[in-house]
Amino acid sequence: MKLGVKIMPREVILDTQGRAVEASMKSNGFNTLSQCRVGKFIELTLTTTEASQAKAEVEKMLKEGGLYNPLIERYEIQTGE
Amino acid sequence: MKLGVKIMPREVILDTQGRAVEASMKSNGFNTLSQCRVGKFIELTLTTTEASQAKAEVEKMLKEGGLYNPLIERYEIQTGE
Repeated sequence: MKLGVKIMPREVILDTQGRAVEASMKSNGFNTLSQCRVGKFIELTLTTTEASQAKAEVEKMLKEGGLYNPLIERYEIQTGE
Repeated sequence: MKLGVKIMPREVILDTQGRAVEASMKSNGFNTLSQCRVGKFIELTLTTTEASQAKAEVEKMLKEGGLYNPLIERYEIQTGE
């Protein structure tokens, strides 16, 4: 089954990439933009078919496999891709 | 309102970052992983309150503002962040 993992910089972290996109959009005339944050999205296809087991494996990859940095990032697993 | 934009490399494009993550996870013993693709996730906060208008603005940013490369990427707007 296919799962998605959204990894975003924590709110307290200065997101330089997001700030750059924000500034660039504003200078291009998109004045309704008030904030922008840029993170990663990882699509994982597993041979596991059971949803809760697949989610547990993805969490293990994130925490033990080092897919994300808990000090500066937060993650969110999206099922039903 | 807050909107999310998921930007992934197109299926026909060789995703080197995804392949690297896949190989790394497999060598770490995560054998149930069959495919991995890595893309971007952008969280945009707009002053616009109307959902369909906000979505139109984000689409304009993507297409005219150059937030994504249509040749090698596909995007998906997620509301209800």
